Amino acid sequence: VTPQDAGRVRSVHIVGTGLIGTSIGLAVSAAGVPVTLADREPSRLARAAALGAGRPAVEAGAADVVVVAVPPRSVAQEVGRHMRSDLARTVTHVASVQAELLLEIESQEVNLDRFVGGHPIAGREQSGPDAAAADLFRDRAWVVCATAASRPETVADVEDLARLCLARPVRMSPADHDELLARLSHVPQLVASALAAAVADLPADLVALAGSGLRDTTRLADSDVQLWTEIISANPTAVARALDDVAGSLGSLVTALETGDRGTIERVVDGVLTRGRAGRAKLPGKHGQRLTPWATVSVVVPDRPGALAELLAAVAGHEVNLEDLRVEHAPGQPEGAAELAVAPDAQARLVAALRADGWSVSIGADAAR
Amino acid sequence: VTPQDAGRVRSVHIVGTGLIGTSIGLAVSAAGVPVTLADREPSRLARAAALGAGRPAVEAGAADVVVVAVPPRSVAQEVGRHMRSDLARTVTHVASVQAELLLEIESQEVNLDRFVGGHPIAGREQSGPDAAAADLFRDRAWVVCATAASRPETVADVEDLARLCLARPVRMSPADHDELLARLSHVPQLVASALAAAVADLPADLVALAGSGLRDTTRLADSDVQLWTEIISANPTAVARALDDVAGSLGSLVTALETGDRGTIERVVDGVLTRGRAGRAKLPGKHGQRLTPWATVSVVVPDRPGALAELLAAVAGHEVNLEDLRVEHAPGQPEGAAELAVAPDAQARLVAALRADGWSVSIGADAAR
Repeated sequence: VTPQDAGRVRSVHIVGTGLIGTSIGLAVSAAGVPVTLADREPSRLARAAALGAGRPAVEAGAADVVVVAVPPRSVAQEVGRHMRSDLARTVTHVASVQAELLLEIESQEVNLDRFVGGHPIAGREQSGPDAAAADLFRDRAWVVCATAASRPETVADVEDLARLCLARPVRMSPADHDELLARLSHVPQLVASALAAAVADLPADLVALAGSGLRDTTRLADSDVQLWTEIISANPTAVARALDDVAGSLGSLVTALETGDRGTIERVVDGVLTRGRAGRAKLPGKHGQRLTPWATVSVVVPDRPGALAELLAAVAGHEVNLEDLRVEHAPGQPEGAAELAVAPDAQARLVAALRADGWSVSIGADAAR
Repeated sequence: VTPQDAGRVRSVHIVGTGLIGTSIGLAVSAAGVPVTLADREPSRLARAAALGAGRPAVEAGAADVVVVAVPPRSVAQEVGRHMRSDLARTVTHVASVQAELLLEIESQEVNLDRFVGGHPIAGREQSGPDAAAADLFRDRAWVVCATAASRPETVADVEDLARLCLARPVRMSPADHDELLARLSHVPQLVASALAAAVADLPADLVALAGSGLRDTTRLADSDVQLWTEIISANPTAVARALDDVAGSLGSLVTALETGDRGTIERVVDGVLTRGRAGRAKLPGKHGQRLTPWATVSVVVPDRPGALAELLAAVAGHEVNLEDLRVEHAPGQPEGAAELAVAPDAQARLVAALRADGWSVSIGADAAR
């Protein structure tokens, strides 16, 4: 943050009070900057205002920054409307696609110097103002997509908005953003759905035998169909290219498996699995580091109120810092298993201490799959 | 459990003291049935014995059930050897592939009436005796693959072994088992690896922007390359067929996206996402039910020892039963977010109570993606 950029945004108008718009309103309000809110649905607007996201505005007044936080399909129209009104110094949006929306905005023949698209990389599976949180964007990346037409002051406004929301502004071109998000978000969504679709015709009692491997891999398949159809439809070229890479890997696996030749199969399978580990090693773990080699300790947790709290109190009592935690319930199983991630040199001590306390403990980790 | 089946297995010999073999030894020993152990690696054998999984046996003696718990590639040979020795009433294995191993065993021209393959559907990412746990199989399915050649007594022995390990025996033909596991386990493994492979060439600082969506979807890509190459190589036909379904879905998405026609894209994307939700609805949630609509409450957890324990103690203090828990760390973020799953009618009360205690709470859930 350079001194001339900090505190430059003194008023914000938010169009659309769903999860993202309301969360921005809560964060900006918490930073002491006045916020006005608009939504075509009066009940949603009232709810966002009641939560403290800002003051409802019947008509848009002057604002340093207008944030358009509506579904992708309606973004360009709302951005164009606010740029024509001339009441805002800067207009931005927060959609997870950029290049196609920019074209749509350009086609309205508005002057683009006061516009910069943005994308806070954060979200929840739930939607609506009640799912909002002031800290939704804390320490997350907020991609800022300046173009050749953007004035430096406009870019600075959007970066200041991101900082008001405690996010990290990251500059990227609209095309680079869309290429990246295709791989980090849009393709994983489609792959998770295709994988879950492959068990849709199986009897539920057979699918019930699945462990946490299939469950984790398909979690994204719970997402909202309409929103994701809009997102992917607005980024067709980059998604097609990235998805073709994955489909190509799977196709080469199918071809190899169909040869029935053990040597061929082993070579191709080993290749994909090895490359997968290389990709996985680039994913962030806790604190933005690479996935750290925490040692894990598995403990059986009885299914009654407070049992997990007792366990974690015991861990804290033994002065071991819990780095991560995962709770696993097996199908038909009354108890759960808590997988505690701790520093490797604390593992043996923790196992011994918890066993002495009477917990059922095993070294190692992860759930059935 | 019928009375004549319970307690029929009075001695067990386990070949291979890795994660699964040692866990079986621990469970059977805990049930009071004597266990002998064998492993070609003396140090691993000694470790399993020291953990209480059984008594090392230099030579295989007579045993009601011999359990072959070695990697898939070596199973048939070990099973054949023990069936020829005539010291065991019943011989079984615990590999995650069945039909091809059965063919390999048949090719040794041993009499198959004393053999039934089995597969306890449980595991961990770690391997070796130190990752073993007596309750690894508790309430899990243990698939028992009887064939036309199997004597009822042999099937009963393997089912009794499963029950000694607190698992639920589930009968299935070897071919049905392999078809099912291809979809529930082998294909998810390959898809997760192919998806992770698709980010292997991106700069790590860009991959670091990914949220938990990509992380969950690719978690399986951390698995052991050699073991999984063996498993998939031993189930090529079923994996090829199931994988072709997924690759076909992805291929039709690529084709639709490449048309650039919005109507076509929306129709095909909507179709895959909708079908994915249908498949996902069949996956087990807690207690073997379908995924239950727990209400979720998100709480910021400071990064210091005991903070999570304090939170869970507070939850228990407000007499709310925690149904599930997930802890999320964002890249670069010093604090974590705990996502608490509770009964829907407890949500509002818990939010109010935790806020009154000073926690930073939001309704709704799930991590950034």
